[in-house]
Amino acid sequence: MSYVKGLAGIVAGQTKISSTDNQRLTYAGYPIEELAQKTFEEVVFLLWNTRLPDQDELLRFRNDLVSKMVLPAETIRLLSYIAREPQHPMSILRTTTSLLGTTNDVEHDEPPKILSKMLTAIAAIVRIRDDDPLIDLDPTLGVADNFLYMLTGKRPNAELSGMFNTVMILHADHEFNASTFTARVVSSTFSDYYSCLTAAVCALKGPLHGGANERVFEMLSIIVENEMDPLSFVAEQAHAKRKIMGFGHRIYKNGDPRAFILKEIAAKLAEETNNQKYFEIQQQLADYMLKNKQLHPNVDYYTALIYHCLGLKKETFTMIFAACRTAGWLAHVMEQRSQKCLIRPNSEYIGPKERHCVR
Amino acid sequence: MSYVKGLAGIVAGQTKISSTDNQRLTYAGYPIEELAQKTFEEVVFLLWNTRLPDQDELLRFRNDLVSKMVLPAETIRLLSYIAREPQHPMSILRTTTSLLGTTNDVEHDEPPKILSKMLTAIAAIVRIRDDDPLIDLDPTLGVADNFLYMLTGKRPNAELSGMFNTVMILHADHEFNASTFTARVVSSTFSDYYSCLTAAVCALKGPLHGGANERVFEMLSIIVENEMDPLSFVAEQAHAKRKIMGFGHRIYKNGDPRAFILKEIAAKLAEETNNQKYFEIQQQLADYMLKNKQLHPNVDYYTALIYHCLGLKKETFTMIFAACRTAGWLAHVMEQRSQKCLIRPNSEYIGPKERHCVR
Repeated sequence: MSYVKGLAGIVAGQTKISSTDNQRLTYAGYPIEELAQKTFEEVVFLLWNTRLPDQDELLRFRNDLVSKMVLPAETIRLLSYIAREPQHPMSILRTTTSLLGTTNDVEHDEPPKILSKMLTAIAAIVRIRDDDPLIDLDPTLGVADNFLYMLTGKRPNAELSGMFNTVMILHADHEFNASTFTARVVSSTFSDYYSCLTAAVCALKGPLHGGANERVFEMLSIIVENEMDPLSFVAEQAHAKRKIMGFGHRIYKNGDPRAFILKEIAAKLAEETNNQKYFEIQQQLADYMLKNKQLHPNVDYYTALIYHCLGLKKETFTMIFAACRTAGWLAHVMEQRSQKCLIRPNSEYIGPKERHCVR
Repeated sequence: MSYVKGLAGIVAGQTKISSTDNQRLTYAGYPIEELAQKTFEEVVFLLWNTRLPDQDELLRFRNDLVSKMVLPAETIRLLSYIAREPQHPMSILRTTTSLLGTTNDVEHDEPPKILSKMLTAIAAIVRIRDDDPLIDLDPTLGVADNFLYMLTGKRPNAELSGMFNTVMILHADHEFNASTFTARVVSSTFSDYYSCLTAAVCALKGPLHGGANERVFEMLSIIVENEMDPLSFVAEQAHAKRKIMGFGHRIYKNGDPRAFILKEIAAKLAEETNNQKYFEIQQQLADYMLKNKQLHPNVDYYTALIYHCLGLKKETFTMIFAACRTAGWLAHVMEQRSQKCLIRPNSEYIGPKERHCVR
């Protein structure tokens, strides 16, 4: 048996949902750069149907999703206890995702309802932890706008709405990343949607996967709060053999296509919210990393600043990532189900053999 | 890129924990047939340390595990709501596993505490759903005995204790099955123990993985309740193109080594609890399946009857499986962590290419 560590380079399945072939990110064959201009609903429809909706379909899909952005009273009641627990919000989200599939009559819940409930629940966790009242959906707003409204209590203007839709679209899918692959393994046992999503949240919680955006902002905060020169921070990190967060990507060697788009948004939002100092630090760090380490910023790098500018606390950043990625997770769970094939690899036993008990 | 469906035959990792090489099940090199005579604690120690404990170590390990078979009051309070939800107990267990890692100060919980809390929580779910009072641990009993006591409210005698220890040992591990592989993928992101276990429960919930023991008993109940001839049941199922549950195994072509041992236990318990009719039906079905389909009973087949004889309801069977398998899941989570390598396979994109948005 040959053995490749971490299944690196091993094809674990076929997909029509997204691709990073040739270091370009495409959803169902469309370049992410073009899709970034769409609305989140359009892209969710694309991921779930591998084609873009026509105008009627889009309107119906949007209204359907928005109308489902409500939680049963029983779920809110339990959430009001669970969300206040002292653990990391991703631990709360793990329990909450499972809970969405435990309370009430959920057996026949389909992806539109599940995605809508996830977004609403994530906003509710943020609000409950901040002791803010929960916000009801506004039927005049789209899915991304409603999510942002439920998170912050403010209806976004047209410019912010466009930017936030783009952010959600860029985070919506990324072929077989670790959480999506986890969701597919669980789906391959014909487990239910909520189990697949819960398992995906479990994987995204890991510091090698999600969580990097939170640590990017942690780094920026240290520099700002201590009024440090970014380059002396870099030197300190190098001396302590610590990584500079938010750089490099296993797949994208010439830069993460999402980061190019997110940089523009971060720049605009930083200016509008008086957070230019963070963006300036980011530029200095990025210049340094490119010159000295040949590393480009990845998707987490500018996202961290964007979420900060939206008024979100850094512990919640990975939950926002989860909200966006739920669209992709559900696409992959449906695709895996339709393939009707258990994912069950082999292991290679390398321990002692032929041992016997002496009695 | 070559592509093997469901990673079948692909080595996804190396392990010293267990092996099914040559169609024999061994834990850390010891044949399962010899380990079946040990206590559950001894085998958990073996799975976690890849060696058997000496007498002192075993005593300390046992006392440590037993002393930790308690739940924080806050967890019990939330569990008393969640366990009564109308969903399947495995959906309740999914939420509960996550909850164990959300309430209270759990950041430094280590495998002994986590295993003990899982067993106690599973027993609590069973009792709460039956409106029975929760049972506190008995420090004079071992881990398996305490688990059975907490489930049923009765302290097992020496014979039952031996049998239940064997049942737990036989279910404790099975190299890279789908739930264990899921736990390892999550562990590979450096996510926490509770996230790894929650994800494993999500996978075990799937009807292609756990859940078969429940469906075996469903089948037996139909035959008993309708006073059917087992062979005419088989004919009916064949006519309706439905499977006979509890037969065959991807790995064991000449019979599942666990089933041979479990058959003896099922026979004894059936006699003691006046459930012989079930065992007789099982024998008739097994004879038929071997003669006509060349299929042997698997681990789920006799386990179903054993759990019934212990007074458990069929919906709880997969939770008992989860309780036993938690020992193996934790072993694999620790091993995967120590290997420091993200499990992240590739996907093969087979959808349309070079599509563009028209605006």
